[in-house]
Amino acid sequence: MKHMIFGESHGSAIGVALSGVPAGVELDLEEIAFEMSRRAPGKSPLSTARKEADVPNILSGVFEGRTTGTPLAAVIANTNQHSRDYAKTKDLARPGHADFTGFLRYQGCNDYRGGGHFSGRLTAPLVFAGAVAKQILAGEGVKVGAHIRQIAGISDPPFADCPEELGGDLFYKLAHKEFPVLDDQQGAAMQQAILSAKQEGDSVGGVIECAVTGLPAGIGSPDFGENAEGIFAQHMFAVPAVKGIAFGVGFACAEMRGSEMNDALYMKGGEVRARTNHSGGINGGITNGMPITFTVAIRPTPSIAKEQDTVNLDTMENAKLRIEGRHDPCIVHRAVPVIEAAAALAVCELLGI
Amino acid sequence: MKHMIFGESHGSAIGVALSGVPAGVELDLEEIAFEMSRRAPGKSPLSTARKEADVPNILSGVFEGRTTGTPLAAVIANTNQHSRDYAKTKDLARPGHADFTGFLRYQGCNDYRGGGHFSGRLTAPLVFAGAVAKQILAGEGVKVGAHIRQIAGISDPPFADCPEELGGDLFYKLAHKEFPVLDDQQGAAMQQAILSAKQEGDSVGGVIECAVTGLPAGIGSPDFGENAEGIFAQHMFAVPAVKGIAFGVGFACAEMRGSEMNDALYMKGGEVRARTNHSGGINGGITNGMPITFTVAIRPTPSIAKEQDTVNLDTMENAKLRIEGRHDPCIVHRAVPVIEAAAALAVCELLGI
Amino acid sequence: MKHMIFGESHGSAIGVALSGVPAGVELDLEEIAFEMSRRAPGKSPLSTARKEADVPNILSGVFEGRTTGTPLAAVIANTNQHSRDYAKTKDLARPGHADFTGFLRYQGCNDYRGGGHFSGRLTAPLVFAGAVAKQILAGEGVKVGAHIRQIAGISDPPFADCPEELGGDLFYKLAHKEFPVLDDQQGAAMQQAILSAKQEGDSVGGVIECAVTGLPAGIGSPDFGENAEGIFAQHMFAVPAVKGIAFGVGFACAEMRGSEMNDALYMKGGEVRARTNHSGGINGGITNGMPITFTVAIRPTPSIAKEQDTVNLDTMENAKLRIEGRHDPCIVHRAVPVIEAAAALAVCELLGI
Amino acid sequence: MKHMIFGESHGSAIGVALSGVPAGVELDLEEIAFEMSRRAPGKSPLSTARKEADVPNILSGVFEGRTTGTPLAAVIANTNQHSRDYAKTKDLARPGHADFTGFLRYQGCNDYRGGGHFSGRLTAPLVFAGAVAKQILAGEGVKVGAHIRQIAGISDPPFADCPEELGGDLFYKLAHKEFPVLDDQQGAAMQQAILSAKQEGDSVGGVIECAVTGLPAGIGSPDFGENAEGIFAQHMFAVPAVKGIAFGVGFACAEMRGSEMNDALYMKGGEVRARTNHSGGINGGITNGMPITFTVAIRPTPSIAKEQDTVNLDTMENAKLRIEGRHDPCIVHRAVPVIEAAAALAVCELLGI
Repeated sequence: MKHMIFGESHGSAIGVALSGVPAGVELDLEEIAFEMSRRAPGKSPLSTARKEADVPNILSGVFEGRTTGTPLAAVIANTNQHSRDYAKTKDLARPGHADFTGFLRYQGCNDYRGGGHFSGRLTAPLVFAGAVAKQILAGEGVKVGAHIRQIAGISDPPFADCPEELGGDLFYKLAHKEFPVLDDQQGAAMQQAILSAKQEGDSVGGVIECAVTGLPAGIGSPDFGENAEGIFAQHMFAVPAVKGIAFGVGFACAEMRGSEMNDALYMKGGEVRARTNHSGGINGGITNGMPITFTVAIRPTPSIAKEQDTVNLDTMENAKLRIEGRHDPCIVHRAVPVIEAAAALAVCELLGI
Repeated sequence: MKHMIFGESHGSAIGVALSGVPAGVELDLEEIAFEMSRRAPGKSPLSTARKEADVPNILSGVFEGRTTGTPLAAVIANTNQHSRDYAKTKDLARPGHADFTGFLRYQGCNDYRGGGHFSGRLTAPLVFAGAVAKQILAGEGVKVGAHIRQIAGISDPPFADCPEELGGDLFYKLAHKEFPVLDDQQGAAMQQAILSAKQEGDSVGGVIECAVTGLPAGIGSPDFGENAEGIFAQHMFAVPAVKGIAFGVGFACAEMRGSEMNDALYMKGGEVRARTNHSGGINGGITNGMPITFTVAIRPTPSIAKEQDTVNLDTMENAKLRIEGRHDPCIVHRAVPVIEAAAALAVCELLGI
Repeated sequence: MKHMIFGESHGSAIGVALSGVPAGVELDLEEIAFEMSRRAPGKSPLSTARKEADVPNILSGVFEGRTTGTPLAAVIANTNQHSRDYAKTKDLARPGHADFTGFLRYQGCNDYRGGGHFSGRLTAPLVFAGAVAKQILAGEGVKVGAHIRQIAGISDPPFADCPEELGGDLFYKLAHKEFPVLDDQQGAAMQQAILSAKQEGDSVGGVIECAVTGLPAGIGSPDFGENAEGIFAQHMFAVPAVKGIAFGVGFACAEMRGSEMNDALYMKGGEVRARTNHSGGINGGITNGMPITFTVAIRPTPSIAKEQDTVNLDTMENAKLRIEGRHDPCIVHRAVPVIEAAAALAVCELLGI
Repeated sequence: MKHMIFGESHGSAIGVALSGVPAGVELDLEEIAFEMSRRAPGKSPLSTARKEADVPNILSGVFEGRTTGTPLAAVIANTNQHSRDYAKTKDLARPGHADFTGFLRYQGCNDYRGGGHFSGRLTAPLVFAGAVAKQILAGEGVKVGAHIRQIAGISDPPFADCPEELGGDLFYKLAHKEFPVLDDQQGAAMQQAILSAKQEGDSVGGVIECAVTGLPAGIGSPDFGENAEGIFAQHMFAVPAVKGIAFGVGFACAEMRGSEMNDALYMKGGEVRARTNHSGGINGGITNGMPITFTVAIRPTPSIAKEQDTVNLDTMENAKLRIEGRHDPCIVHRAVPVIEAAAALAVCELLGI
């Protein structure tokens, strides 16, 4: 399955074309709509006030309710642009954003309004593609779920400490939470931290932990391009604002000894299992049958109300920038379904779907 | 440039085939030999006692001292195998290793001796390929360097705090250190920690920080498959034992506010520069002209002398394993040139070389 | 540049997503419309009576008249479907068509109406993509043209015998002919042959010759995946009804001696030139600076009015089929701009655009 | 399965690296040696006098007689080079060869001796890779065979007229013939034509027909990059001297009517079959269960003894060239196993092996 995401924040529409979709998958459109709504803006003071219906219009690849196996394209209209908000600061590169790098890469020709193709809005078609991928994977017994692992220094416990078994029920509960954490008290503290930052015209970052269950052991390869960790990573870095990815215990392995880190193996019901999952379900680039677990670091939203030093890309002079318009003081909670979507696409690639 | 690494730890030879090498690059074979020696085992009590000459035999792609532009293949003979060390424990899956996952993936047909194709020994042809890549990149003004950022909880300062300018001289000095750290006192403490772990039959992990200088701004894309961070990540995860990668401040961004994290821009000598480099030289998947900096997490060596619980893959019963043979109590220092090699290959991919 | 074509003949829309488009190309929309009109049906008794406006709606990737460099998507609405024509014969696999192979490949889930994703209608977005590619290539001095080389055994002279120089003027003249041949008398005979076949409820095939001028020497490689001939071929076989491709003199080389076939070299104005172009501008998979010339074989339209033996894919019994609906007695003349479009995309791939 | 072929005609060795080989395939080394011998030079006056043992040395990817599933590399030493033959004419571009295009592509740095990487000698590792692929495919019931369809205007009957059923026995007989034709009388006439050309210091071309049996119906796709015909074509054009490919009746379809060309379908033993195979086993880019048949055009060997006009790439002046050394007056018969090898690799790609 290959996907190509297109569109700009303030263009007429955004969308995605997907090829290699298996034929005959009955698409649950309500389920797709639910996934889209998890990401959609305009729902709470924690997010941007821009409202978008985000209804995907499927142009091809679905016939009589099932995938045809030929390329599937879906388009989402842009309706609620405030392009004038951007015209004033058109030439002022927003620090932390891709305004300057996009300007160079596309020789000043890219659509600057609302971040153009770099906008977080482009994660809507990604969530759509991921929703299709999830429905394909459900037929293979594979489930994907995620939660906020950290925001502004406040932590949710890791999946590894979760008293519930990873998988469908837990993932369902998390997906239906407004603020997807395992420990709601910690979640409340995080939300407080987001609102504090917002009041100060600032933003916060965080960490998302994602898990994949039901993936058989023996998938992947140690080699470049086929390595399970590399495949997940490449999908994750295509999500805006992701700055890092680590599997299992992640960077904490640097402080562990081999005797602690190694996941001891034992037989359980005729199958080889690991007593712990420090390696996040992957050894030597190949799945080991344990849940895949990984964390991704999400940078604080670069768009902040505070005045910042920057340059004017037209005059090439130093400048002061004060960003107006509607922005997210934190995108971590909205990024949870996006990370799941990217993970679902990565699993399809791994499985050769 | 594409590369295919082949070989097994105890087979007749390992090697690499490289296609897409630019024509006319004068190869400095001594420089290649130096890079190989940085990775080579058998040099100190901090590493495995296996000694290998690691002399690459270039079979094609070089004519009269210069690359021909047609595929370049190099082969390194295996000479110092102790295959019998492995026969005894052939069926006992080493925890943390790919024995179990490789067994499933390759249906028990892969060469188990010394880890076979999963062996860290396969990083020798990777270092060779990286050495070729570095010489190509030198012609473009691009330099790659790395240091140990952490071992066993003991930290070397980040490149960001380094009083010296990143680039050729600093990288040269680091490459010529036996133990490549910025602060040798911290390095001494790290070495002590490695020897302690070794005495206890255990191993330690760590973090390597890598930097790339001289890469022009405007390279990469926000999109899947073309994203600069995704390209680096995919190359890094093809290095055995890498469990995480993060750019710039990495996972620390989760605790920062936007106002702290954003790298303010200003004009310097007619060029746009950033006052800080928290984003590691990449915004929106595109280079911004600052040095690329990233850290990778290296797990502790899974091969330890301590007894471990595991399973016998032949009888499918629980078993105890005590690994003998020659092993590294820590591979972080030897992995430094490997990470540089993988980074050099990633830069070639990014530059369309 | 990568392209993904989507849609079904009787779905709501067809289209294409293009990534890797260079930034800053001023798109001449009238020129694009002209290319679309060359392929459009409903213009003469030589083609199907289905009329389609074929107006591409560009959703993204173009801003203020220029390409942005980010993915460009265009959608063409389907408006003039007669889906009921197909319902009657839904289960009867049309011989020569992909009904049977598509049924197996997509497990009976693909949209059968009007050939679905296999329809020649899907060449409309291909022509759109090719029109964009042509405008990019024009900036590089590269031109693409084609003519009907043969229909129903009646031949137009090859480009090699053409008294006019290959390139812009000749290509312009050909593109503006209703029936693009070098010798209009031969063209008239071909049209007569098409109408004869039509009257008999039959169809005819032919050969198209395509040429590319302005491509520099030294592009391509002998190796798999980078070979100039292989790249053109792969693009051509993605055009429905193409059954063969051959470069230069093509299959006639089998009857030539080396002394005839070899293109003697000589110096002309300081440049190496070939006296003849039997090899079609490519040696060893690499362009030699002469025009690229190749021919493609186009099978006779499989949809004919005559009764045919086939099978019913529902009952799995032998059946008789009489195809009704609107069909082309010959698609060769309409395929000329499609072959040019595919050639333009191939040249972009070759040039690394 | 991916392959990378490396080496130069007069370098130390040539070879191939293959990744993605399925694990557990028992390799029949004698069968591989037999395939190598079919291509090997020095066996008859019809071919070059250069003798090469062509014994592949497998460096990796095979353990205890079976493929490991990890990359398989094989190296073939060059032993019988007469490099001095080439030094005299080093700067004289041989017409029809890649001397001039290679000179430009590789900026004069490629190994010119004996054609370097462009040499037909590089088909030895291709035959090796194909022999491995054939053994993998045998396990899937897929067979590949080929015969000379035409040399110097003299024709062997097509497979379509062959009284024997396509498949193992016929392919075995053909592979064991010194001169693989269906009609030995025609073969004798072809050999006579080759010797005549040789006596005149000239060379002849021809056509090879290849067939694949046992491939299931429903493999491939109409889309670019996944199209069965496109995949075969790309593999064929990576064989030196191939100038065209056509499926089934090939270019003859241009003179046929739809009613003739269409392969009528009928039920046979519960399966859908076609009464004829004019489309060569592929419709809409997807296999239809009939044998795949295609022809490839092989140009006459460019190296001829006759004096030719050319240019001196050093002085950039007109020059006369008289090629000495050992050459093939015809490579069609030696190319038969090469085309089979490329076809076997194409089938692996199609099957996702």
